Amino acid sequence: MEQYILYVPAILAIIGLIFMGAKYAWVKKQDSGNERMQELSASIKEGALAFLSAEYRLLLVFVVIASALLGVVAYLVPSTEYIIILAFIVGAIFSALAGNIGMRIATDANARTTQAARTSLPKALKVSFGGGTVMGMGVASLAVLGLSIFFILFLNMYMTGEGSFYDNMTVVLEALAGFSLGAESIALFARVGGGIYTKAADVGADLVGKVEAGIPEDDPRNPATIADNVGDNVGDVAGMGADLFGSYVATVLASMVLGNYVLRDMRAAGTVTEAFDGMGPILLPLVIAGVGIIASILGTFLVGIKNNEAKEPQVQKALDMGNWGAILITLIASWFLIDWMLPSEMSMNFFGEGAKLIPSINVFWSAVIGLAVGGLISWVTAYYTSLGKAPVNDIVENSGTGAATNIIAGLAVGMKSTAASVLLFAAAIYGSYELAGFYGVALAASAMMATTAMQLAIDAFGPIADNAGGIAEMAELPNEVRERTDILDSVGNTTAAVGKGFAIASAALTALALFAAFVTFTGIDGINIFKADVLAMLFVGGMIPVVFSALAMKSVGKAAMEMVKEVRRQFREIPGIMEGTGKPEYDKCVEISTKASLKEMLLPGLITIVTPIIIGLVFGAEPLGGYMAGVCVSGVMWAIFQNNAGGAWDNAKKSFEAGAMVNGKIEKKGSDAHKAAVTGDTVGDPFKDTSGPSMNILIKLTCLVGLVIAPILGGHGTEEGYAVINEAEVEHSISVVTEENNKSTANSEKAVATITEVGNVETVITEKKSSAHEKTQKEKE
Amino acid sequence: MEQYILYVPAILAIIGLIFMGAKYAWVKKQDSGNERMQELSASIKEGALAFLSAEYRLLLVFVVIASALLGVVAYLVPSTEYIIILAFIVGAIFSALAGNIGMRIATDANARTTQAARTSLPKALKVSFGGGTVMGMGVASLAVLGLSIFFILFLNMYMTGEGSFYDNMTVVLEALAGFSLGAESIALFARVGGGIYTKAADVGADLVGKVEAGIPEDDPRNPATIADNVGDNVGDVAGMGADLFGSYVATVLASMVLGNYVLRDMRAAGTVTEAFDGMGPILLPLVIAGVGIIASILGTFLVGIKNNEAKEPQVQKALDMGNWGAILITLIASWFLIDWMLPSEMSMNFFGEGAKLIPSINVFWSAVIGLAVGGLISWVTAYYTSLGKAPVNDIVENSGTGAATNIIAGLAVGMKSTAASVLLFAAAIYGSYELAGFYGVALAASAMMATTAMQLAIDAFGPIADNAGGIAEMAELPNEVRERTDILDSVGNTTAAVGKGFAIASAALTALALFAAFVTFTGIDGINIFKADVLAMLFVGGMIPVVFSALAMKSVGKAAMEMVKEVRRQFREIPGIMEGTGKPEYDKCVEISTKASLKEMLLPGLITIVTPIIIGLVFGAEPLGGYMAGVCVSGVMWAIFQNNAGGAWDNAKKSFEAGAMVNGKIEKKGSDAHKAAVTGDTVGDPFKDTSGPSMNILIKLTCLVGLVIAPILGGHGTEEGYAVINEAEVEHSISVVTEENNKSTANSEKAVATITEVGNVETVITEKKSSAHEKTQKEKE
Repeated sequence: MEQYILYVPAILAIIGLIFMGAKYAWVKKQDSGNERMQELSASIKEGALAFLSAEYRLLLVFVVIASALLGVVAYLVPSTEYIIILAFIVGAIFSALAGNIGMRIATDANARTTQAARTSLPKALKVSFGGGTVMGMGVASLAVLGLSIFFILFLNMYMTGEGSFYDNMTVVLEALAGFSLGAESIALFARVGGGIYTKAADVGADLVGKVEAGIPEDDPRNPATIADNVGDNVGDVAGMGADLFGSYVATVLASMVLGNYVLRDMRAAGTVTEAFDGMGPILLPLVIAGVGIIASILGTFLVGIKNNEAKEPQVQKALDMGNWGAILITLIASWFLIDWMLPSEMSMNFFGEGAKLIPSINVFWSAVIGLAVGGLISWVTAYYTSLGKAPVNDIVENSGTGAATNIIAGLAVGMKSTAASVLLFAAAIYGSYELAGFYGVALAASAMMATTAMQLAIDAFGPIADNAGGIAEMAELPNEVRERTDILDSVGNTTAAVGKGFAIASAALTALALFAAFVTFTGIDGINIFKADVLAMLFVGGMIPVVFSALAMKSVGKAAMEMVKEVRRQFREIPGIMEGTGKPEYDKCVEISTKASLKEMLLPGLITIVTPIIIGLVFGAEPLGGYMAGVCVSGVMWAIFQNNAGGAWDNAKKSFEAGAMVNGKIEKKGSDAHKAAVTGDTVGDPFKDTSGPSMNILIKLTCLVGLVIAPILGGHGTEEGYAVINEAEVEHSISVVTEENNKSTANSEKAVATITEVGNVETVITEKKSSAHEKTQKEKE
Repeated sequence: MEQYILYVPAILAIIGLIFMGAKYAWVKKQDSGNERMQELSASIKEGALAFLSAEYRLLLVFVVIASALLGVVAYLVPSTEYIIILAFIVGAIFSALAGNIGMRIATDANARTTQAARTSLPKALKVSFGGGTVMGMGVASLAVLGLSIFFILFLNMYMTGEGSFYDNMTVVLEALAGFSLGAESIALFARVGGGIYTKAADVGADLVGKVEAGIPEDDPRNPATIADNVGDNVGDVAGMGADLFGSYVATVLASMVLGNYVLRDMRAAGTVTEAFDGMGPILLPLVIAGVGIIASILGTFLVGIKNNEAKEPQVQKALDMGNWGAILITLIASWFLIDWMLPSEMSMNFFGEGAKLIPSINVFWSAVIGLAVGGLISWVTAYYTSLGKAPVNDIVENSGTGAATNIIAGLAVGMKSTAASVLLFAAAIYGSYELAGFYGVALAASAMMATTAMQLAIDAFGPIADNAGGIAEMAELPNEVRERTDILDSVGNTTAAVGKGFAIASAALTALALFAAFVTFTGIDGINIFKADVLAMLFVGGMIPVVFSALAMKSVGKAAMEMVKEVRRQFREIPGIMEGTGKPEYDKCVEISTKASLKEMLLPGLITIVTPIIIGLVFGAEPLGGYMAGVCVSGVMWAIFQNNAGGAWDNAKKSFEAGAMVNGKIEKKGSDAHKAAVTGDTVGDPFKDTSGPSMNILIKLTCLVGLVIAPILGGHGTEEGYAVINEAEVEHSISVVTEENNKSTANSEKAVATITEVGNVETVITEKKSSAHEKTQKEKE
């Protein structure tokens, strides 16, 4: 089997796609309800696809410009090939495709879920989760397929037998980074654009419809109601899908890069074997990802309820069964894969500690840490954002004294929630590194991401159920239908919060793996924040997520204002609209959201992509590393803070629907305390759906951009060049050291001079490095 | 003069104290108004002193415990002497004394300012600014005096002529760090406790008085009104004073430590001179601080207005004159001092770049950068928080659609404002380091802090004027009096915002200087975040300011709730209170604020002090460095964000007092838009007065704690020990390198093995280091 291992991930991905196709066909076969329901569903689909095609037109321009820039990189850097442009474009297309599939199935499944809910709850769950499954499978399978095919292609192109294994593999992986960059760039725009879209429509619809006109949510007389439902799909489905697609690809890529470095260390120690073409550590993450798809398929069969009278806990349990089932299968499979694909002991070089012999089982334990920490962070997230738990109850209690105390309490909940998550995250870094170095960190992230298909199925089911409820409302179906979809929607809110916890944890680990890959790619000896330029850039990096969040929040405000004006205009100008005789112009509102979100996503997108390039070119690789670290540290805090505060506010508001205890009294919907909670929820909306989730992509993309431009900065060149530099380093050290030694180091103050000299050596080495780089450069030309 | 230079700072500080005494006597001589005014002023003073003495009792316990811990450190570490305990205690006492002086003069000056305002505005400015001057002079003079006296004392004790200059000076400076630690610890509790106190009283008084009972601010019928006025003094006077006292001491200390390192580099290069007992670079920051006191005295003479009809701009201009005057004098004096006290060229070791020859004029330019960046950050702060500027107007505009949009706009303003400040700050680090290494960074901070006396005079004048207005209201004086004090109060609000910008900029630079001192103290070779434990602690550090802020905010909420209950009780139970016939029990409210704030300040205080100790002891020096950097990066962001958002909300609310333009309509006080703005201001209150300003102390104290425990971690021991380690390093390098070279490095993959070996060398060196440390340890015992 060993000789075919290279093709296994691709085959598993194709199985995933076939399963997706079958599921898609099954969903499409379901009854889509009466004419009115079909019409509503069609409007939502139309709006969603209109947004996508407008977005694609804009992104086409971006892809062309970025491709040209990549061409420049390929021209300048010996180890970067022009094929990176192809990889980038395909990565962008695959990401868009993944979003497109998700959006189509979600907008097909919504009315069918409503219709199923007319019969029974189990049926409604089956249809909505079926829709989610299509999305999850699509994203995961396309990611693994794309990576596999390009990897095989690049292996055939560059592993020519000439030159060293390491150098050729670096070329392969650098080209593969283009695929990841393409995927992540599209994800940025999808997440930010989608986030702005959904909240502009939501806030606009609520402010005029609910507050000013006094009509209920999802009322068909509200012109923004279709835009609102489109937004659920654009933001929560396409945005989330693109986000996880990007994470998935980036994690596997970073693991592969680090696998290449492990192999180099192993060759240096003479412990590398010929098994798996001598690239077991590189292939392992890709194979685990493929196996994760199969595990997720198996997991989906565990999701289902039998009882029509089931409530939220039963539905939640059904989803948990599927999730944990998939995780368990992946874990068991990983144990066998690691045992099989890695030599029982690997020599790894630990920065500043020298080489160590690492038993392969350590890699398995790193994966376990990844899964455990992912699960725990999700659990912490659920605690801070769930109905009935202390943090949400505290916000409810504080709503009694008005909006201000509600807001303060919500901000404090979000801020406090960073503690547990960050400690867990720090433990994950520390633990997995101690076990197996940065390869261990990357494998922890890979394990966490392996069941992405299942995670996403659970995630995407929420917005489908939400839409189904909207359609039930707009089509004026019996109350019991809405009640059933509400159960699904409520579970969906919890899974959405948990999914956000998972997304940020995986994004952060991915970013760290990319960060490690960046350091090794550039060939610098670490990121020392005791250098002032590195420290300064650490601060600049720390500022970026804060400013990015501010821009995203303001964008929602601006877009929502336009929406408010348009809805007011329609209420004023269309005769009979409030009586239900005049038809609102839904498409106008869809257009406003579409245009505004596309316009507003540009600036944050550009900041994300351009800033690291400028810093890298002006200050060099190490300050860029400081910048990346700053973005990661600050980004993780602001992501957790914003997501959890937003989630907690949302559920604090929901607490009033059943009546909440405030100051010993039961307060209901419509009370002053409830109004205060609504204010909090409105503040939380852009937090949890726009700026918060964007942080994930910000940190990943920052590190990816750094990784792609790394060769320009570090000039690590070829392994041969590396040897030349190394030789220079060794030679020079000898002369300096011997000289110093002869002078005798008894005099303590002279010793300091030695240190000074050693400092100078570094300068010399740097010079030698760059001249070596120039040499390779000239050869290429 | 050279031989007396050591005594110059102390003499200048004594001149400052004499000037303070004269000013104090002058203020006391002023008419304190009618009986009612004197009674009110006495109540405020009594409440303020009651808070202080309750605080001191609590802090006494803390000081005893901390002294015991320092005793342990002194027992364990060869280079730490028991005298550090004395320094610590005196530092704590001086800090408390500075706060006490400030509080006394502020509570004496308030009624006298009110009385002066009955005559004229120029007189009122003179009295209130006179009060501020006493406070500013007290803080700055005590800081310089304390540092000078201890420095002279320790020089006599430890510069014995035996052993190397560097080692003995390290002992001196380490003992001096105790003084700084004492000052900063008290500052933490004063800032956090004061911040909680002032906002609990403010929010409590407003919620029941203004909102529920409908009586105006500062109405004497409100039982919390005295507590509210006490709060202004406790938070804005004593808290701010202790904060800047701590910064001042820490900055000068860090500069002295770095001066010692510069001297070591200079001796290594043989460029050290005998002038100033061979310690010019160490003395320079202390002398500049002393000169800054004189410059501030001169500056105070420039503050004054003549015209009784003057408005805010004229008052602001008068204060600016004094401020810029003092800065200019300091700058000119610094040029001469640097030229005189430093050799024209100094050899400095730049990490990773080797030794460089730095002309002394570079140090001057570093100071200029410090002053320029301090000024620019203050200007940026003023822009984001001032009435009539775009950011505040944006919040005003967004108040038109309710509290939620007001809050979102305010949060966005705060977040956006980090961009300019952080870029300036990064430029300051980069620029001053390029000019003169970390000594340059420290001198930039020192220059910024040199005119602390003047800064604080301007800062403290605000709350005095605020109190004066309160007394005018409570004593039912004619409207014109309140109008005059309102002019002063309004200017005071702007100077408070600017002062906060200055405080955070100086705290951040101070923290960096301490951070650099920490790295040199521990003798580690930088902070490399490519090591997983360092990276993990960077994240943990980044989380601390967020959680700290949440705790501080929640504390305000809790304390305010207790206050609300008490005020409600008094309104209910005291007969005739609303008619003005029953006397409210002011002292009950004062007591609630006092108790609540003292109780609530403990947890954040402990987190700040204990966390770095645990991390240092468990993980070691380099991870602790990562933690410090995380706290600094995240702390700076959250400080700027919270201070500026809070300031902007405050002025957005104030915009409605004169009528603000919202959506093309003029909205006045009492409109819905104004109510939304009041909600925003209430959210902003703990931001700008409790959690935001606490960040300064959090980052400084974190770095100071690290610095004090540094010798335990790094075991840098003595300069002799340093030489031993160095020798070991050199010897070992030779053997490894020679061996490798003999084997020939032609084979490129073997070269990697060399790298591995070099990694191992580090391990060996670390071992040698610790054994060298043990040796010195045993000798001591």
